[in-house]
Amino acid sequence: MSEVHVVRRSRLRERCATSAADGSPADAVLVSRPANIRYLTGRAPSGASLLLGAGGQDTLLLPAACDTPEPGVAHAHPGDELRIERLPGPDGDTAVAAADLAAKQGARELAVEEHHLTVSRHRAVTSVAPRLRLTGLGTAVEQQRVIKDDAEISALRIAAEITDQALGELLESILVGRTERHLALELERRLIDHGADGPAFPTSVGAGGNSGLPGHRPTDRRVEEGDFLSVRLGARYQGYGCQIGRTFVIGTAPDEWQIELYDLVFAAQRAGREALAPGAACRDVDHAARQVLDAGGYADALGVATGHGVGLEIGEDPRLSPAAMGKLDACVPVTVEPGVHLPGRGGVRIDDTLVVRPPADGGPELLTITTKELLAL
Amino acid sequence: MSEVHVVRRSRLRERCATSAADGSPADAVLVSRPANIRYLTGRAPSGASLLLGAGGQDTLLLPAACDTPEPGVAHAHPGDELRIERLPGPDGDTAVAAADLAAKQGARELAVEEHHLTVSRHRAVTSVAPRLRLTGLGTAVEQQRVIKDDAEISALRIAAEITDQALGELLESILVGRTERHLALELERRLIDHGADGPAFPTSVGAGGNSGLPGHRPTDRRVEEGDFLSVRLGARYQGYGCQIGRTFVIGTAPDEWQIELYDLVFAAQRAGREALAPGAACRDVDHAARQVLDAGGYADALGVATGHGVGLEIGEDPRLSPAAMGKLDACVPVTVEPGVHLPGRGGVRIDDTLVVRPPADGGPELLTITTKELLAL
Repeated sequence: MSEVHVVRRSRLRERCATSAADGSPADAVLVSRPANIRYLTGRAPSGASLLLGAGGQDTLLLPAACDTPEPGVAHAHPGDELRIERLPGPDGDTAVAAADLAAKQGARELAVEEHHLTVSRHRAVTSVAPRLRLTGLGTAVEQQRVIKDDAEISALRIAAEITDQALGELLESILVGRTERHLALELERRLIDHGADGPAFPTSVGAGGNSGLPGHRPTDRRVEEGDFLSVRLGARYQGYGCQIGRTFVIGTAPDEWQIELYDLVFAAQRAGREALAPGAACRDVDHAARQVLDAGGYADALGVATGHGVGLEIGEDPRLSPAAMGKLDACVPVTVEPGVHLPGRGGVRIDDTLVVRPPADGGPELLTITTKELLAL
Repeated sequence: MSEVHVVRRSRLRERCATSAADGSPADAVLVSRPANIRYLTGRAPSGASLLLGAGGQDTLLLPAACDTPEPGVAHAHPGDELRIERLPGPDGDTAVAAADLAAKQGARELAVEEHHLTVSRHRAVTSVAPRLRLTGLGTAVEQQRVIKDDAEISALRIAAEITDQALGELLESILVGRTERHLALELERRLIDHGADGPAFPTSVGAGGNSGLPGHRPTDRRVEEGDFLSVRLGARYQGYGCQIGRTFVIGTAPDEWQIELYDLVFAAQRAGREALAPGAACRDVDHAARQVLDAGGYADALGVATGHGVGLEIGEDPRLSPAAMGKLDACVPVTVEPGVHLPGRGGVRIDDTLVVRPPADGGPELLTITTKELLAL
């Protein structure tokens, strides 16, 4: 992957040279946000900072108390011109050290991630290199991350396969009488069994009145006959995370209201999926899903977004919401995840991860292929 | 717990009224760091901000897309004069809304957590309320959190009990042939089985050459005869997390070098534990443990700190390191966790969580009571 990272860093450099946030080119760039460092170097030890230096030299600075498995890493992958330095003392800040290094390398301007650096760290960066003019990098790296390359999409495909396997196995087991917590833990164990780095986000399992809540944390509520059971999980594989959400009915046959609600959410989710195309406005995709629920009388039950990008982070750009700006591109993986929760009764969520593709390529590529039929378990 | 939170907020208010970071009193205080919000309110929905307003009114602002289980929370616990407001739109920032509210309530100054707010958020806060003078709250809340009350220590005791139980059960099972990953997952499952909110930090299991590495992430390495096996885990209970670390030998009898290394780390850890007392300098506790390893010839193998505070966060103040300032107080829970790792061979870590107590009360209270004998499993 190391050549990929060199190319990504070059692209960022070019972008900064042509248009810094305030219009003037930045000599040097300081990246501190972990997912962005990982995107640009393939690694993200906690507390690290990446300096794209004025002379073309890239340096990854690690804290002394770094939890990297190999202490004393001092060289990069072959072909990757990345120097790795570890701070000598325990109390140093890698961003401050990076600014110091940038000044010593002759930079006059340094673009920093103002949406990640705290006020205190920014001040410390300023004071270590008072002649360095600090500018804003904005979300340049995040924007670069939106369109995925083949290797990234492959990682997402594998993440989705693992997720489908873990979920499929759970569905074959007895669910009645088990708690939400245990089911969530078992799903996470199965993700790792099948080769995930770990869960991409905390697994959500909601039974009965807890079903259909978007951010529900599993409780000791046991699964009972007649419940809606909603699960949301996703594997992380080589750093890339996907997301699936499904809702089931426990028992022999669903109630009338359960079938109606499920069909409505399913129709909304399908409308969202079908609206995915290169050039489609993000808000239009949201609207496609949302209007189905609106028409069913559930306008208020719906959350603020019906989907979002996935990649090195769950919930990255783009955002599919009424206020979202911008359009989709090909090779952008997103979730489509409308849901309705009726307080006291429960609800339905159906989430998929898909990659936007042009109609000529068969339209959106569905990564999470577990059935969306309403299963009675 | 709600009266406790009212008292904590009053103390913070008093502290800010008498000595703001720049010497002048702040009318209003904006707390954005999640652990600090939890300490002051008992809850910490993601993206929330807490305003201690100029008129004595405290408001917790929640984002519209909040993952609180109960959407639309609009009132606080009885006796807790905390108003809870949810932002109307999906794109609002609760810190910005809090600053806006502070200005409307007539505040002239607002103390913010500059070590938590990003440059971008700070700028947005400034521009929504340009007449409000922003000052630095510093780490006032973190400092207030250092000495724990009885309820906090009770929660830590239960966290430690759960942790000991989970570890004890693992030791009764067959370990040879299982991977680090699986052992870590099983430990985390057992933590939750015994009533933990979850793990307080990612469980570390290191076998053979991976043993004794402080921040080791579990791999697919299988446990083999003759290995050192080091585990580090901790339950979180009612928000409070503890930490235990133990090292075992796999097989019938440890090698000579394993016994020697273990005895040395054990002696260092005991020296650290015995140095814990109200009034003891943090650096002296570190020195007590460190000098034993230094004398054994392992000066370089040691990390930058030999312990740290625990509570709502793992790794909070105080820090036990050579550069640490300050002294210990009674009722401060800390870890003592020296370790040595020999590259290629493995190593030993022994971590305990203890509460600092005066000698008249029997000295430090050991919370994590799993044996520290060198067990051959």
